[in-house]
Amino acid sequence: MTLDDASLQKFGYIERGPLNAINIDPLQRGGILTEEGRRALVQWGDGYSICDFCGGQLDMIKKPPINDFVHKALPEFLGTDEVRVTNGARESKFAVMHSMANEGDFVVFDEVAHYSSYVGAQRAKLNVRTVPNSGRPDYRTEPEGYGIVIEEVIKESGKTPALALLTYPDGNYGNLADVRKVASICHEYDVPLLLNGAYAVGRMPMNAKDIGADFIVGSGHKSMAASGPIGVLGVSSEYADIVFRKSPTYKTKEIELLGCTARGATVMTMIASFPEVVRRTRKWDSEVADARWFSEKLKVMGLTQMGDRPHNHDLMFFEAPNLYEISKKVKKGRYFLYREMKARNIHGIKAGLTKYFKLSTYGVGREDLSVVLDAFDEIINKYEKL
Amino acid sequence: MTLDDASLQKFGYIERGPLNAINIDPLQRGGILTEEGRRALVQWGDGYSICDFCGGQLDMIKKPPINDFVHKALPEFLGTDEVRVTNGARESKFAVMHSMANEGDFVVFDEVAHYSSYVGAQRAKLNVRTVPNSGRPDYRTEPEGYGIVIEEVIKESGKTPALALLTYPDGNYGNLADVRKVASICHEYDVPLLLNGAYAVGRMPMNAKDIGADFIVGSGHKSMAASGPIGVLGVSSEYADIVFRKSPTYKTKEIELLGCTARGATVMTMIASFPEVVRRTRKWDSEVADARWFSEKLKVMGLTQMGDRPHNHDLMFFEAPNLYEISKKVKKGRYFLYREMKARNIHGIKAGLTKYFKLSTYGVGREDLSVVLDAFDEIINKYEKL
Repeated sequence: MTLDDASLQKFGYIERGPLNAINIDPLQRGGILTEEGRRALVQWGDGYSICDFCGGQLDMIKKPPINDFVHKALPEFLGTDEVRVTNGARESKFAVMHSMANEGDFVVFDEVAHYSSYVGAQRAKLNVRTVPNSGRPDYRTEPEGYGIVIEEVIKESGKTPALALLTYPDGNYGNLADVRKVASICHEYDVPLLLNGAYAVGRMPMNAKDIGADFIVGSGHKSMAASGPIGVLGVSSEYADIVFRKSPTYKTKEIELLGCTARGATVMTMIASFPEVVRRTRKWDSEVADARWFSEKLKVMGLTQMGDRPHNHDLMFFEAPNLYEISKKVKKGRYFLYREMKARNIHGIKAGLTKYFKLSTYGVGREDLSVVLDAFDEIINKYEKL
Repeated sequence: MTLDDASLQKFGYIERGPLNAINIDPLQRGGILTEEGRRALVQWGDGYSICDFCGGQLDMIKKPPINDFVHKALPEFLGTDEVRVTNGARESKFAVMHSMANEGDFVVFDEVAHYSSYVGAQRAKLNVRTVPNSGRPDYRTEPEGYGIVIEEVIKESGKTPALALLTYPDGNYGNLADVRKVASICHEYDVPLLLNGAYAVGRMPMNAKDIGADFIVGSGHKSMAASGPIGVLGVSSEYADIVFRKSPTYKTKEIELLGCTARGATVMTMIASFPEVVRRTRKWDSEVADARWFSEKLKVMGLTQMGDRPHNHDLMFFEAPNLYEISKKVKKGRYFLYREMKARNIHGIKAGLTKYFKLSTYGVGREDLSVVLDAFDEIINKYEKL
């Protein structure tokens, strides 16, 4: 590509199509900026904006109050001893794996762990063993599975796994496993537990200490109404010196964070949205009620929610045999649901899916959820007559 | 900290003090958003905005044209075969070190390499050997130094270094070493060369192939008018399969990037600013002329620029013995320069520095540069009479 005026025209400012759609993509629901976040974004958008105030360590900046945010507010919010902001949940997880385990070590994941947990382990050159789930229709991770797999690892490798990871909730079915029991079983074997709370932190109340998690990971762009990429990493004091070890040559720089992470608008949008994010986690019960109500309504239309029932999270996975049957009959059928939803300004069910798909009701509210339900109803009625 | 309404008040939206100052911090000059970038920021600010369009691989998104940007425009712009966006220049460098070297391997850096290069090597558990510079006043890195240090590594370890790194320009003195010669010497020993162009890519014309660099790294928030954190990583085809190796279990996910990087407003601001960024690199000569002009003017006032003279980059390091003398005489003297500049709405010389400091003239323009020069003149005159 020659970089002349003609070819450069394709870049520049581009509009975001589905900006004003009802977006039920689980990835999108928790990352919508608050009004305060949006104002902060404009104010702090330039490259290294926050570095004007930095004496060498981002998390120690006193004004704006990043120090209070990182070292006081976030530890309280996550129920953990030490917190840092990172470039995202996956970067948080890799930082833990890379510092807690050595090449060739074993780690234990729930089978439904996010792909980035597996890829993180591959980057850190670790061996992953998984705790299987119960399969259709519940896809439940049983805590006892951690004990079984840990014992298998000990048998196979002669030592305990370096780390266990639980995805809470998992990103496919939105299941919330019995995390306290998982933690207690892992600790019986002295295996520290990392909680991937990318879909939890910022949506629902979370407290790593209550749970017994040694590490807790959250995602700013997924669930904390922040502009990405940004995440949080909470570590218990027992392991903080390992994960946040400092450079021997640059005394203020933490090796695992490469010295600095969210050096721009990302951390300032997270701070801007934080009061509202704290408040919204306190209304979690009504979000769960919305999810259950929505799930019941779809059930009447012939769509079956998989995973925990009644459900305990806004992320839900549906089986829709009726929509699948329709897709086999109509032209370019795989895409009919996407097209029909788009025509109704509803976004977030992946293009091409009809038989199985996930969605989220988080923060949508009953009014817009009713619009979505009506859309399903109309679409089913329209095509079932064909 | 209890997260009640009173304590939460400290967070939320916060104004950015020096937003409208003349900012001569080298970190800040190249990261100021273009008008198009600012519009994109608002449009794409929500958490995972770009993921609405993703089929599983960010860099393959066709609309908006991320695929063309990453796989056509950026390779042309950087003069390299393969490019990816990353979470920043430091993350790009770590990705190269972590994939090209094994624990315990040796790497060769220029002594004035950025701290994040050293911290990256520490994270990858590598041994760093450095090419010393010529010291005051030029602080020049001589290409021949690479040959000498590579030979020393071979002698010490029995094998060639896994990688050499040159910081172009370095972030202290803004020196541009004879990079072609460095590349040619490294290649004589079959050592691949990584060019850290965090202060070059997006400011001045760069072409990795012309230079002979195997890897090239740039920073979006430092020099490409993008909202951070975001960087670019260019890799020659010879090493692309190593650095961008895919997960064995998730065929579309690149291990070293943990599957995905700039999943939000960052990449969209980079794309928005790109046409202007391309155009501004073509006006590099006038930027260099401004820097030289500014340096000459300060010289008359008793400030001596260190590093390459005449200078070839907007980042400059000054010795100011006269300001240092003043600082010893006045109350809270260490901070007098910062205070005086701030009173004139000029930002970017680090608080507390008077004897040595760096600044940048990039994109400031003669008019505002004259304001800065007048400020120096006034301040010197005001205090020299005391």
